[in-house]
Amino acid sequence: MVDLLTKTGIEESHRRIGNAIHLTPILSSSAINALLGVEVIFKCENFQKIGAFKIRGASNAAALLSPEERARGLATHSSGNHAQAVAMAARLAGVPAYIVMPSNSPRVKRAAVRGYGARITESGPRIEDRESTMREVLTEVNASFIHPYDDERVIAGQATAAKELFAQCPECTVVFGPVGGGGLMSGTCLAARSFSPGTVVYGAEPIGADDAARSLAAGHRITNTVVDTIADGLRTNLSDRTFDILRRHLEEIITVSDDEIGSALRLIYERLKIVVEPSSAVPLAALIRERHRFAGKRVGIILSGGNVDLDRIDLSIWKSPEFD
Amino acid sequence: MVDLLTKTGIEESHRRIGNAIHLTPILSSSAINALLGVEVIFKCENFQKIGAFKIRGASNAAALLSPEERARGLATHSSGNHAQAVAMAARLAGVPAYIVMPSNSPRVKRAAVRGYGARITESGPRIEDRESTMREVLTEVNASFIHPYDDERVIAGQATAAKELFAQCPECTVVFGPVGGGGLMSGTCLAARSFSPGTVVYGAEPIGADDAARSLAAGHRITNTVVDTIADGLRTNLSDRTFDILRRHLEEIITVSDDEIGSALRLIYERLKIVVEPSSAVPLAALIRERHRFAGKRVGIILSGGNVDLDRIDLSIWKSPEFD
Repeated sequence: MVDLLTKTGIEESHRRIGNAIHLTPILSSSAINALLGVEVIFKCENFQKIGAFKIRGASNAAALLSPEERARGLATHSSGNHAQAVAMAARLAGVPAYIVMPSNSPRVKRAAVRGYGARITESGPRIEDRESTMREVLTEVNASFIHPYDDERVIAGQATAAKELFAQCPECTVVFGPVGGGGLMSGTCLAARSFSPGTVVYGAEPIGADDAARSLAAGHRITNTVVDTIADGLRTNLSDRTFDILRRHLEEIITVSDDEIGSALRLIYERLKIVVEPSSAVPLAALIRERHRFAGKRVGIILSGGNVDLDRIDLSIWKSPEFD
Repeated sequence: MVDLLTKTGIEESHRRIGNAIHLTPILSSSAINALLGVEVIFKCENFQKIGAFKIRGASNAAALLSPEERARGLATHSSGNHAQAVAMAARLAGVPAYIVMPSNSPRVKRAAVRGYGARITESGPRIEDRESTMREVLTEVNASFIHPYDDERVIAGQATAAKELFAQCPECTVVFGPVGGGGLMSGTCLAARSFSPGTVVYGAEPIGADDAARSLAAGHRITNTVVDTIADGLRTNLSDRTFDILRRHLEEIITVSDDEIGSALRLIYERLKIVVEPSSAVPLAALIRERHRFAGKRVGIILSGGNVDLDRIDLSIWKSPEFD
């Protein structure tokens, strides 16, 4: 089989998942461009199926299973978008989904996963609780586990978002993406190398979950044990696999505060008129701070998703950003 | 000159304003379609320049002035999107704009109008205050007044939104629009007659500002003196001109409560992942209530705009709609 992380591997992944995903639109705002002095192109994965890019990787992994493996069903543990993605991928494949969700996951997310027909098993809130419950479930049902990011099939799937962006905006010489576990960011780096080799790729990470920035600075992987950020999709640590890809291909990681994330989020709601989750605002927050370095350039930003809990969001607490 | 309210008049209006407007996208949601049992196509004027359809009518009116009239500048009184539209139309034409805004208009809207370079004159909060202040300003500067809806040039401009919708969705046999002063609704009726004569057009109006529904029922124009609705863009009364068009061409007006508007608004944020103002949710609220009459049909909905004051909106108070 072809190496999934090469140009051909990503192209084949894109064809493989074609029926499972939307080709999401790009948007821009002359007001945002004027404020930043940068021409910003937003890749809108909030309009993706299940409301986030995660369906790309999950459906690629599901399609790459053998018929026997797939027939046993798909499994994962997640409190967020990856749970919905695996549930949806299983439904599209006509096989069962077994999702372990922590007891503190939002009611609305559990309802969404259940809505796709998945069987939910509740675990304790800690990551070790999820993993042990997942092992119990897998012992029982022998389904195929799909990791949210530590998996080449998943990374190649996530790479298709940036691949589309480069086709939609060939002039994007800079791209910003968000860094959580590193699946989307790794895919973005590999897509740039394959489809837009002149493009420089930057990562953006919340200060309160800065394991990737610290790992790249140290030259070896460092994990955070305590995380604190409103960007709930970016609280996970890199794996050895994603660390190694980012170490080799990512230009730099810029870290931002929750205040900066909130201001960027507000700008997206007010100016682009779209609903995104806090994690999606992290790359714009980084670009706002560092905008003088990118003056006059065309910069692509990957908005990762739009699954926000409207009962919890309070946009009024965030000040509009101020520009000098 | 050709009659502005005919097919040719609307076509010429569309060409005339081509450089001033965006061809806005349509969006749909399989989740919303499944909930309603109706295939709903949303025409997204929240993505329009100035964030609302109003730029269509204002720029058409501005372009139809003689060079001498235009050079004297454009004027209007408005607390909302029409103020921004006239300010933007003036800037595009390179002429001054004189906008009367009531003292209680939101700071953010005044900032937007000022951002387009308009001169703002503050008036008292009542409609009579605005009109008297407007007369004073016009006496001083002799600019060309553009009414927000009681104007054929404006109505022909607003008609271009539905004209685009019919080109994007020729299968839309039903269209819902919001009714405030009746400019957009009149334009939508006339566009249907000209470009999609088989399409049936419905209006949606807040119960707390139901002058149009009551007027059509009575067969003569009735004005509301007290209005009470979260749909702040729909608080105005019809004019004789818009009443006459709606009386002849509109199938029916469906009125909805603020609770129903809130539920529809939430569905738009959660499922379409876009930011719209409360007025935009009124047609969907009407369709949700009357959905059984439209089962299996393809229904176009015009989302009028996305200029919402995020400091004031509180989505958490609105329950998600329940479907039987």
